[in-house]
Amino acid sequence: MDMEEKKIDGEVIFDGHVVKLHLDKVKCPNGNIASREVVIHNGGAAILYVNDNDEVLLERQYRYAYNEVIYEIPAGKLEKGENPKLAAIRELEEETGLKVNDLIHLGDIYPTCGYSSEIIHIYLAENPTKTHTNFDEDEVIDVCYIKLDKVKEMILSGEIKDAKTICAINYYLLRK
Amino acid sequence: MDMEEKKIDGEVIFDGHVVKLHLDKVKCPNGNIASREVVIHNGGAAILYVNDNDEVLLERQYRYAYNEVIYEIPAGKLEKGENPKLAAIRELEEETGLKVNDLIHLGDIYPTCGYSSEIIHIYLAENPTKTHTNFDEDEVIDVCYIKLDKVKEMILSGEIKDAKTICAINYYLLRK
Repeated sequence: MDMEEKKIDGEVIFDGHVVKLHLDKVKCPNGNIASREVVIHNGGAAILYVNDNDEVLLERQYRYAYNEVIYEIPAGKLEKGENPKLAAIRELEEETGLKVNDLIHLGDIYPTCGYSSEIIHIYLAENPTKTHTNFDEDEVIDVCYIKLDKVKEMILSGEIKDAKTICAINYYLLRK
Repeated sequence: MDMEEKKIDGEVIFDGHVVKLHLDKVKCPNGNIASREVVIHNGGAAILYVNDNDEVLLERQYRYAYNEVIYEIPAGKLEKGENPKLAAIRELEEETGLKVNDLIHLGDIYPTCGYSSEIIHIYLAENPTKTHTNFDEDEVIDVCYIKLDKVKEMILSGEIKDAKTICAINYYLLRK
């Protein structure tokens, strides 16, 4: 079945620090012409760390788009072309003061496939050493450890809503 | 800890069919002024259905932002203010020909908390009756059933990347 849509025209609506917005005209497989709003994003890297006490490293962070403080695993956005694993290693140390030399790749997720090109690369950290945090300007992050069983309850109760965090826990549980 | 950022100015960059883009100026808790690019989206509704043979209902659909055909559970976007459960019931029938009178709420996810306001509401369908599909114009969807054990493998292997699908499977497994 031919499903591909072919771009026939397009314009850049916005070119920002976090997102670009493209408005494209495409030809659908049935021959129809349609418009596609596409958010272009460089992607992100996120890190799951579960310590020897079966506690998950989580952050509480204010997210402006939701006007809410939410729980998430450590993560950061990539610069264009940046190696996601190296970015994950850097973000983990900057935000939590945990240093690793390598990470285990858990998976790459498409957070919102309907309109964004973003890919979030998810990794597992093992046996980190403790250094010190180094937050970005304007970053206010509260780091905590929560028992894995409690994290599962928080996903089911809706207290944890962040998709990359729920996906990371799923990868972790499925690998067991 | 005060984490909230207060909007002090803002402009609407784009107002489209799928997304709006706002560029806001905010005051951070530390007093700094920062800009925030926010994608405003009405949200979506997605439906997990696992039949009596332990097979998961999945769709293969072309997604323009990734230029790729991906596996996902049935889903659709909401109109502004639309009831997500009613939208989910409608989308399930339109895309798969399965009719239900009610759905079980699994959870609401924040797919990409860094720049978008989107919430995807995820439901579980039970005991649907078979009617007929009614695709939107330009929608090309290939519906299939895949064994739950195989779906778990496809998540771990990276063949399934869609975040709402991985989250839905996580809810399903955690509820057991």
